[in-house]
Amino acid sequence: MPASRLSTQFSRALGLRSPLIQAPMAGGPSTPELVAAVGGAGALGSFGFAYTQPEEMKRASAAVRAADDHPFGINLFVSPQPAAITAEAQRAAIAALAPWYAELGLPPLQPAAAPYAPDLDAQYAAVAEIRPAVFTCHLGAMPGERVREFRSLGIRLGGSATTVAEAKALEALGFDFVIAQGGEAGGHRGTWTRDPHEALTGTFALTRMVVRAVSIPVVAAGGIMDGEGVAAALALGAQAAQLGTAFVPCPESGAPEVHKRAVLSAYEDDTRITEKFSGKPARGIANRFMREAAGFPQLAFPVQNALTGKLRQASAKAGKPDFFALWSGQAAPLARALPAAELVARLEQEAIEALRRVAALVQEEGP
Amino acid sequence: MPASRLSTQFSRALGLRSPLIQAPMAGGPSTPELVAAVGGAGALGSFGFAYTQPEEMKRASAAVRAADDHPFGINLFVSPQPAAITAEAQRAAIAALAPWYAELGLPPLQPAAAPYAPDLDAQYAAVAEIRPAVFTCHLGAMPGERVREFRSLGIRLGGSATTVAEAKALEALGFDFVIAQGGEAGGHRGTWTRDPHEALTGTFALTRMVVRAVSIPVVAAGGIMDGEGVAAALALGAQAAQLGTAFVPCPESGAPEVHKRAVLSAYEDDTRITEKFSGKPARGIANRFMREAAGFPQLAFPVQNALTGKLRQASAKAGKPDFFALWSGQAAPLARALPAAELVARLEQEAIEALRRVAALVQEEGP
Repeated sequence: MPASRLSTQFSRALGLRSPLIQAPMAGGPSTPELVAAVGGAGALGSFGFAYTQPEEMKRASAAVRAADDHPFGINLFVSPQPAAITAEAQRAAIAALAPWYAELGLPPLQPAAAPYAPDLDAQYAAVAEIRPAVFTCHLGAMPGERVREFRSLGIRLGGSATTVAEAKALEALGFDFVIAQGGEAGGHRGTWTRDPHEALTGTFALTRMVVRAVSIPVVAAGGIMDGEGVAAALALGAQAAQLGTAFVPCPESGAPEVHKRAVLSAYEDDTRITEKFSGKPARGIANRFMREAAGFPQLAFPVQNALTGKLRQASAKAGKPDFFALWSGQAAPLARALPAAELVARLEQEAIEALRRVAALVQEEGP
Repeated sequence: MPASRLSTQFSRALGLRSPLIQAPMAGGPSTPELVAAVGGAGALGSFGFAYTQPEEMKRASAAVRAADDHPFGINLFVSPQPAAITAEAQRAAIAALAPWYAELGLPPLQPAAAPYAPDLDAQYAAVAEIRPAVFTCHLGAMPGERVREFRSLGIRLGGSATTVAEAKALEALGFDFVIAQGGEAGGHRGTWTRDPHEALTGTFALTRMVVRAVSIPVVAAGGIMDGEGVAAALALGAQAAQLGTAFVPCPESGAPEVHKRAVLSAYEDDTRITEKFSGKPARGIANRFMREAAGFPQLAFPVQNALTGKLRQASAKAGKPDFFALWSGQAAPLARALPAAELVARLEQEAIEALRRVAALVQEEGP
């Protein structure tokens, strides 16, 4: 049988071989090596630059371009900075974290000082300079002038939606596509117009509702781990599938070993949503920190993220999953430890086989 | 173009035209008229007999058989009866409900007396007498002798699973198929081996994980409302799709008008999970009762269900959605008010079109 390929209008417009996106994963997994390997295999690799300074954004992007000239994407968190944090609130949050810092033999935690995260305008400026094929935003929508600026630079714009209303808002704001982030998805919930805990519509329901509600292309995300999932996303009317957890265990992924092992050893959906690591709700495999920190005081994002940083790093370094943010979607048990290019090739091949299998369920009846 | 049809090994084994199941919906929607209309259109109609006495089970089943001889299914809740309820606990639950009873002009609520629900063994005996093509259980698994008895009667057995472990347990117990009830699903959560609030894996992730974990056929349920959803369920490896909310607005459905209107007027996923109507967690469109009763004392299932019965009925009769259990899945905005047979025909046709559309995304490459 000759080789086959799978493509959609959206993937062809982006110059991709297949309608697959490696999800941006801030804080480690999406290294230049991963983004380049995914791009080289014909899917869209993506950087999660939420916590990355502009100079590092440019360096990492240049590293991918040095490898080849495939398109790639950049993602930023565009939520507004929190109001000033009082010294009292900091003390309470630090006191809550102190026992775990002590347990890992870390020096006592000091109050975090502003800026707690890279300057968003400087990050936007770096994106404009890098001019990636795709820019996506999470946790909000960009201001209108940024939409116009990026579009004038030829950057295709996508945004995360966890509700129909968010998808329609992105369309109205001039975005080129919307990522329907279903409740299964790992990492930070992208909800930006309501309580994220009340916007946990499953990928199946959300993808279909968003496809019906907007005219721009929809990318399905959440719980997609293999080619059968990709085929299902396309059947729901999505133009592409975005997979994050599936790429966490790749050798090119920068996730620490404790994270890779946790994903690869999952048997059942044992994820929970927690705000305790970063200050914003995110889905990860339940561990000691998520259980023990429930109900403890926390600061707003990204201040809480700054406070837990050394704890997470030390946990990973010690080979302990207890205090690391094991971000993962609900379908982690389907994860495989494959080189990224091989994973992309298998996803495409599995999707093609699944589509042929289900097409054969249709029988013509006599006239 | 000649007419086409869609079938799977599972649907052919059951003698169905198409791999579609109308979900059993206890407490009203699944009337003999609905079950007969669905069966006549080539899908599997199902009775939700959780609250139905044996004589009524037999009468309703005979009414369907008087219409035609298509196969149909019967579903029961098989959870164990709760321990005895103390008078004090009853008083607290009644006091919590009293203001709403008064608001609707109902006489003061009296304590519920055992039996709070039909006798399960008598219901099992009625099923053995009716000998439906399919029997499914919810909220648990049947005892081994019942499994053997029903199978010896030629009844095909299915059970609900909300986790991989539940699916594997059903397979080990000799069930013929498993219904993967994703987090999107409306009505009672079928979880029976862990906290139902911690078993809300989305349909997309759960279906795929269960398909990979068991060898018996898997039926996908939760958030499936149209043929594109049916096609996606098949792509995930399910052998059939089970739809409940999609059938609530049918003219043959026994759901009261307030329920049908609530489903048909949904714009966004506004469902929540509540235990306040029945004592067991179930998903429905959020209304005044769900909001106001949150945090109030409640009794165990099915005692709480008995206590809220008159309130729910009076609310529906008054045309008020406020105190009725508006069970619904997360994709209610995709609901249509169609006669059941027309809905089944459209689901099949849409699924066929979706499968053809996605099959066309595969292109052969040169050798």
